[in-house]
Amino acid sequence: MMQIYADNAATTKMSKAAIDAMLPYLDTIYGNPSSLHSIGQEANEALSKARERIAKLLGCEAGEITFTSGGSEADNQAIVSAARIGEKRGRKHIISTAFEHHAVLHTLNKLEKEGFTVTLLDVHSNGMVTAEQVEKAIRQDTCLVTIMYANNEIGSVQPIKEIGEICKQHGIIFHTDAVQAAGHLHINVNEQNIAMLSLSAHKFHGPKGVGVLYARKGIALTNLIEGGAQEHGKRSGTENIPAIMGMAAAFEEACANIDSNSEKLIRMRDRLIEGLSEIPHSVLNGDRYSRLPSNVHFCFEGIEGESLLLLLNDKGICASSGSACTSGSLDPSHVLLAIGRPHEIAHGSLRLTLSEENTDEEVAYIIESVKGVVEYLRSISPIWNDMCSGRKSFV
Amino acid sequence: MMQIYADNAATTKMSKAAIDAMLPYLDTIYGNPSSLHSIGQEANEALSKARERIAKLLGCEAGEITFTSGGSEADNQAIVSAARIGEKRGRKHIISTAFEHHAVLHTLNKLEKEGFTVTLLDVHSNGMVTAEQVEKAIRQDTCLVTIMYANNEIGSVQPIKEIGEICKQHGIIFHTDAVQAAGHLHINVNEQNIAMLSLSAHKFHGPKGVGVLYARKGIALTNLIEGGAQEHGKRSGTENIPAIMGMAAAFEEACANIDSNSEKLIRMRDRLIEGLSEIPHSVLNGDRYSRLPSNVHFCFEGIEGESLLLLLNDKGICASSGSACTSGSLDPSHVLLAIGRPHEIAHGSLRLTLSEENTDEEVAYIIESVKGVVEYLRSISPIWNDMCSGRKSFV
Repeated sequence: MMQIYADNAATTKMSKAAIDAMLPYLDTIYGNPSSLHSIGQEANEALSKARERIAKLLGCEAGEITFTSGGSEADNQAIVSAARIGEKRGRKHIISTAFEHHAVLHTLNKLEKEGFTVTLLDVHSNGMVTAEQVEKAIRQDTCLVTIMYANNEIGSVQPIKEIGEICKQHGIIFHTDAVQAAGHLHINVNEQNIAMLSLSAHKFHGPKGVGVLYARKGIALTNLIEGGAQEHGKRSGTENIPAIMGMAAAFEEACANIDSNSEKLIRMRDRLIEGLSEIPHSVLNGDRYSRLPSNVHFCFEGIEGESLLLLLNDKGICASSGSACTSGSLDPSHVLLAIGRPHEIAHGSLRLTLSEENTDEEVAYIIESVKGVVEYLRSISPIWNDMCSGRKSFV
Repeated sequence: MMQIYADNAATTKMSKAAIDAMLPYLDTIYGNPSSLHSIGQEANEALSKARERIAKLLGCEAGEITFTSGGSEADNQAIVSAARIGEKRGRKHIISTAFEHHAVLHTLNKLEKEGFTVTLLDVHSNGMVTAEQVEKAIRQDTCLVTIMYANNEIGSVQPIKEIGEICKQHGIIFHTDAVQAAGHLHINVNEQNIAMLSLSAHKFHGPKGVGVLYARKGIALTNLIEGGAQEHGKRSGTENIPAIMGMAAAFEEACANIDSNSEKLIRMRDRLIEGLSEIPHSVLNGDRYSRLPSNVHFCFEGIEGESLLLLLNDKGICASSGSACTSGSLDPSHVLLAIGRPHEIAHGSLRLTLSEENTDEEVAYIIESVKGVVEYLRSISPIWNDMCSGRKSFV
């Protein structure tokens, strides 16, 4: 049976280049970069170069890069750091959106318990927020705006440069969770007025367990993890050199191929959107155009997302209903609720996230399979039959 | 030229078994364990099994294991969690020692700023603390005792079971940083009365960037990293499955071979101690018997540790003056100061930490090389010449 992986927003398969970059650091150049001897110093040189390589791809300086254990840690540290800076200046107001990743939202909840005030901007039904909304929400005591680059469920890409510009004008730190965007969209932190940014390697064919926190020079980081003086004293623990080397290689590869990958992905994505739109009572979530090249996200009325996933899995298709991080939960997605989808519809969601390794043949098979499975599930659903016969109304 | 790696307390070379266990999870079973589809569930099953395998080796239950990004994170989370539990019960006193790892000491500093009181036990000149010292320091409001299993610089192994017994009697959480002990000494958390324990995979031939926090059932953990509900909701971020699989394999291999490895290591260690003790004005740090099988740590009077390391490196020997985490610092080791070594002596330290892959031939070469380098450095040292001629006294 065909096996199709269409859950690349959850995690990706490591690329050969990334694995090859990682392997020598497991058993040959395995030193601790803090060690003075040659094996340690060789690791340390690789670490410095990886930092420079990644900085170059983001358009910043090496000293502005801190390596973390992943996107969640980077998000947490960015927000806590900006909050501590704000606190010292008597500013305890933060602006964000209702559809951020939980690494952001839960950190904001923690700060609220400490006395911070958080304004969560409404997200338009197309999955977008605007720079005007940000500007309107700014107060005298706003210390941080944190808005994701691209949503992890519905793929909508936010007007980052414009939001950054507003923040810059008001002297407010702008952080963006770019976990879904890095390696997939062109990013330049200076041109886009980004003061802090988080990314995660395993979302662009790099290794799991490693990420980056970019913080513009002058923004003092607060340690989440205390200990040795690694990462300019801001993130303790022996540096995960193999993973960092894998990340640098994967990021270089991904950034070098953004245009060609996007072209292919957009073609496949649009074919999927077209095909799945033919399903009656289906709705595309997220903006039709300002969206990740890889992301397709639909709701199908009268369908339970979990059943849909399991039947697609039986057909060899690996997909998701939304974020992997909350897939164990039976609650409807906070992202879909944020864009105004009613509970009944939000439950029937399907996220397909492609990589450049997917093929047109696979896309055709996915369309055919989803159509078949949705039809089948509706045929056995009493609620759906009630709706069709007019005993219950469609949403 | 011979290259000899004798810095295994800083980090180790990954074993073949650990690498082999890791590789399939990079590009074959690469799913996100939170994903419902088969590739995700395959990763999730591996994660559950790895948790059980590690729990078995520590003598605890799988539900008591939380995977972290390493030893530093585990130490931080253990201490902060115990402090939060104590705080709720009005207990804000913590007992530790002056020679803990900085991941412990700096976390304690942070808590002191919040109003906690920390008693740092004096460490005897042989690098040991006693259960009696712990008992004497216990107060009505003590919420945590955190004492390392084996010191990372001088290798002295503490009376963990006895300290745990005292804590148990007094209803106080006992945490031990077992980063240097795990995989090298037999550990059973229940038999040894350990309530919380931290370990790091890269210290026993596992991968970097992954560790374990064991917390006895009923001890509520405080999140350092908020986000998805991974690790029972206590440690967010996509699980680093490849590293966890590598760690499980390395830990099984290390634990299975503790006795045979120890026998070999102790023989090599004792030969080194004997050989280096012949150097005039040298002193062994750490207890002669209650010490890690792999650890040799000397101070040589009249020597700068850094010069010693660099010249040994020229001879192909990778060694350390103390902890890798602080090797960039010119301050003398806080561990050596804690055991009462004067600054002048503490500066001339050498840590050799062996693995079972070292050979008797290498040990002989190390002894010969250290003797030669110490003699050479002293011959060009004006201070040493002053001491020898009586113009300055020996310490």
